[in-house]
Amino acid sequence: MTDTDLDALVTRVRERVTPDAAERERLRAAASDLVARATAAVADLPEPADEADVLQVGSTARGTWLAGDRDIDVFVRFPTSIPTSDLETYGLRVGHATLPDGREEYAEHPYVKGEYEGFDVDLVPCYDVESAADIRSSVDRTPFHNAYLAARLDDALSGEVRAFKRFLKGIGVYGSDLRTEGFSGYLAELLVLEHGSFRATVGAAADWTPPVEFDPEGHGRASFDDPLVVVDPTDPERNVAAVLSRDNLARFQHHARDLLADPRESVFFPPERPPMSAEEVHEHVRRRGTAPVAVAFDAPDVVDDQLYPQLRRSLDGLERELSGRGFEVVRSTTAATEPDDGRRALLLFELAHRTLPAVERHEGPPVHVRDHAEGFYRKYADADAYGPFVADGRYVVEREREERDAAALLDSDLLFEAALGARVETALRAGYDVLAGEELAGLDGEFGDELRAYFEPHV
Amino acid sequence: MTDTDLDALVTRVRERVTPDAAERERLRAAASDLVARATAAVADLPEPADEADVLQVGSTARGTWLAGDRDIDVFVRFPTSIPTSDLETYGLRVGHATLPDGREEYAEHPYVKGEYEGFDVDLVPCYDVESAADIRSSVDRTPFHNAYLAARLDDALSGEVRAFKRFLKGIGVYGSDLRTEGFSGYLAELLVLEHGSFRATVGAAADWTPPVEFDPEGHGRASFDDPLVVVDPTDPERNVAAVLSRDNLARFQHHARDLLADPRESVFFPPERPPMSAEEVHEHVRRRGTAPVAVAFDAPDVVDDQLYPQLRRSLDGLERELSGRGFEVVRSTTAATEPDDGRRALLLFELAHRTLPAVERHEGPPVHVRDHAEGFYRKYADADAYGPFVADGRYVVEREREERDAAALLDSDLLFEAALGARVETALRAGYDVLAGEELAGLDGEFGDELRAYFEPHV
Repeated sequence: MTDTDLDALVTRVRERVTPDAAERERLRAAASDLVARATAAVADLPEPADEADVLQVGSTARGTWLAGDRDIDVFVRFPTSIPTSDLETYGLRVGHATLPDGREEYAEHPYVKGEYEGFDVDLVPCYDVESAADIRSSVDRTPFHNAYLAARLDDALSGEVRAFKRFLKGIGVYGSDLRTEGFSGYLAELLVLEHGSFRATVGAAADWTPPVEFDPEGHGRASFDDPLVVVDPTDPERNVAAVLSRDNLARFQHHARDLLADPRESVFFPPERPPMSAEEVHEHVRRRGTAPVAVAFDAPDVVDDQLYPQLRRSLDGLERELSGRGFEVVRSTTAATEPDDGRRALLLFELAHRTLPAVERHEGPPVHVRDHAEGFYRKYADADAYGPFVADGRYVVEREREERDAAALLDSDLLFEAALGARVETALRAGYDVLAGEELAGLDGEFGDELRAYFEPHV
Repeated sequence: MTDTDLDALVTRVRERVTPDAAERERLRAAASDLVARATAAVADLPEPADEADVLQVGSTARGTWLAGDRDIDVFVRFPTSIPTSDLETYGLRVGHATLPDGREEYAEHPYVKGEYEGFDVDLVPCYDVESAADIRSSVDRTPFHNAYLAARLDDALSGEVRAFKRFLKGIGVYGSDLRTEGFSGYLAELLVLEHGSFRATVGAAADWTPPVEFDPEGHGRASFDDPLVVVDPTDPERNVAAVLSRDNLARFQHHARDLLADPRESVFFPPERPPMSAEEVHEHVRRRGTAPVAVAFDAPDVVDDQLYPQLRRSLDGLERELSGRGFEVVRSTTAATEPDDGRRALLLFELAHRTLPAVERHEGPPVHVRDHAEGFYRKYADADAYGPFVADGRYVVEREREERDAAALLDSDLLFEAALGARVETALRAGYDVLAGEELAGLDGEFGDELRAYFEPHV
C-alpha cells in the first residue's frame, strides 16, 4: 500500500459518513424547534428555575455525527440554587412539554426520551456548575465538553473525527456503555484533536505501549490505573477513557496496524455476519471436541449498564466455581437478547470435559505437623475414601467428588455457591434451563449472533 | 493405652525376633568356618596382599540381626599399598576359595556371593584405611561402623535395635537400597543408640519437625539438605540417612504415633496382602471413574539400585510430558517384577481423562508488543485454527492438538520426547505394550502386588 491508498480511502469514507446538506438542514430545523419548545416550557417554571438555559449537546450539536445517526440531545441547565428534587420535577415537566409522546427513563436523574420529526431525542436536566470539576452528576459535565470541542473542531477536523468514529464502529469498539466498554464519541474527538488527523491517530496507536497517557490541557493531577488515559480537558480528575477495556484497546491497536498495512473500506463497513445456525453450532462442537454447558434464563429487568457488568461478574463467579471443582473451562461467554418483554440471558462455559473422575484428591497437612496431621488422619482413616496415604510429605486422600457432572452441578443448588451478580442471582432463583453438548444448538434462535462471534472469533 | 501395653508389646516382639541359642550357634560356627577359610586363602596370596586381615561385619557380626535372617558378610581388608586391580583380583581369588560354588557380583568392586551351611554369604574385598574419612570406596567404611557399634551395643540395646528394625520392616521402610529409600540397619542402630531404647526412639520421632539432625560424635562439618540427618560417627562428611526419602520419613513418623496410640503386634508383623485380581482392578477403575494408561516393557538388565531410579526418572519425565500436553495425571506409579530372565517393568499413569478436546489454547504475545504481535498474527491469520482473537490483551488461537488420545500418544514416537532414564529409553525402543482403561486388569499376573498397593493405598 502507499500513503495515497490510505488517504484516498479516508476521503471515500468521509464522503460516506458526512451528512449531506438536506440531512444537516433537517437536523438543524428539528433541533431548533426542540430548543424553542423547551425554552418556552422553562419560562413557565417558577423562579429561579425559569432562569434555566436550554442547549443542544452531543455529536449532532458539535457537527461530528455520522450520516444517518438520528440522536438529538437537548439539555436544560438549571441554577445550582434549586434542590435536586425540584430539578428532577422541572426537568420532567419541560421534557413532557417538549416531547408530548415521550417516556421517562432513568440514568443519574430521570429524563424524557421521545421522537421528533424522525429523530431520537433525549431531553435531560442538569446543573449549571462553575466548572466541570464542580459537577454533581456526570451529565453536568456534558455542556463543558460541548463548549471545549466547539471551540476547536473545524470542518476538516470534524471530517477526520467522523472517519475515526466509523473506524471504531467498524471494528466493534465504539461506545462507552458497559456492554461495549469501548470509545465514547468524546474520546474519539479528543484523540483526533490530539493527533491532528485520522491517519496520525491510527499511526500513533499502532505503536502504543500501554499505559498510554494524554493530557491535552496539561492539568492532570490524579494517577490512573487504566491502559489508556486521556485526562478530560474540562476535569483534571477524570480519565475520559476509563471505561475502555484492555481488550478493546488491544483490538483497536490491531486494527490500526491492519488498516495501515492493508487499507480497505470493509474495515469501516464490515459485512454483517448472519446468525449461526443450529447445524453450524453442532459442527463446531463436534470439531472442537469440547463439552459446552450453558445456563439460559429470563434476564433481570435492569438497564444494560447494570445488566452486562452483572452478567460478567456471574460468568466469572461460575467459572471460578467450576474451576475450583476441577472442571477445565476452555472458554466462556455471556450474552443477552435485545431488551423487550421476553429478554433472555445466557452464561456459556465450554469445558474440556463435562464429567470428572468420581474421586478427587484432597491434600492434608504435612505429616510432621503433629496436631493437624493427627486430626486429618483420624477424620479420614475410616472414611469411604482412598487413603490416607503419603505424598510429598503430606497426608493425601482421594475422596468422592461432590458432583462429577458439570451440567448436574449447574442444575443444582451448587450453582448458588458461586459469586453471582445480585440481580442475576434473583433471576436464576426464579428458574433457568441448563443445556449441555449438542443441546447448545437449540440456542441458535435467540443467540445466533453471539454463537457466531463465539465459534468464529476474530480480533 | 498405657506405657505398660507398649512395653509388654516390645518385649513380645523382642522375643520373636531374637535368635535362639541354636540359631546363634549355627551362625557363629558358619561365620567362624568362613573366616578361617578366607584367612587360609589370604595366606596363599603374594605379599603384601598376604597381610590382609579377614573380619566378619554386618548385623550378624554385631548381634543385631533378626531371627531367621541368613546373611553373613565377610570382608577381606587389604593394605592400601596394593593397586585396585590387584585388590579386585585377590578379592575374587579369596572369594572363590572360600565359596567354591559362589558367583561373582559387582558393586563398587567385584565380589563373590554364595551359600554356606544355609547362609547367604558375601565375601567382599576392601582397603585397610586409617579412618572412615580416608575411604576409597564405601565398603571401606563398613569395618569402622562395625567397630563403632561393637563397642557401644550391649545385649539389651541389641534387643531394642532388633525390635526397631522389625518395626521398620513391618511398616515397609527398612532398607537403604534405592528401591526402598528407607532406613539402613546402621541408621536404625544409631537411632536406638542415640535415644537409648525402642520406645524413646519412636517417642521422639512422633514429634520430629524435619529437618532433624543428630551428630552422635559432635563432629559434623558439612551441611546436609536432607529431612533427616544422622552424621556418621566414623565420617563427619556423611549423612547416614541420605538415602531416606521424605515420604518414608513421614511414614515412619506416622507409624511411630500410631504405635504409641495403639500398640499392637500387627504393626511389626503385618498380614501379607494378596496380589490384586483382575476383577478387583476392574472394580477400582470403574469406581474411581478415571482413565489409566500404562506402558509395560522388558526391564533393562541393570541392578535394582540403577533400575528403580531410572524408572522413577522416566515416570516423572512422562508425567511432565503428559501434563505439558494437557492431560491431568491423578496419580502414577512404576514397578518391576523380581529379577529373573523375563523381568518386566511398568509405568502407570492414572489420568482424569484419556482424551482431550481437539483444540488447544495457544497464547501469543501482548498485542501492544508490535513486532512479536505482528509475527504471531501473520502466522495464524490464515491457519486452520480458531482465531487469532484477543484475550487479556494478548492474541490467542485455538489450534488443533497434536495428539488428543493419551494411549495413542504413548504408543507413538511422542513417547520419546519425554525425559527418560537412558537404559529405560533403550529398553522401550526395543518394544513395549500400551494398556488403557480396563486392559490394566491384564497386569494382575505380573504386578498384582503393586496394583494392590496402588489401588488400596495406605501410609
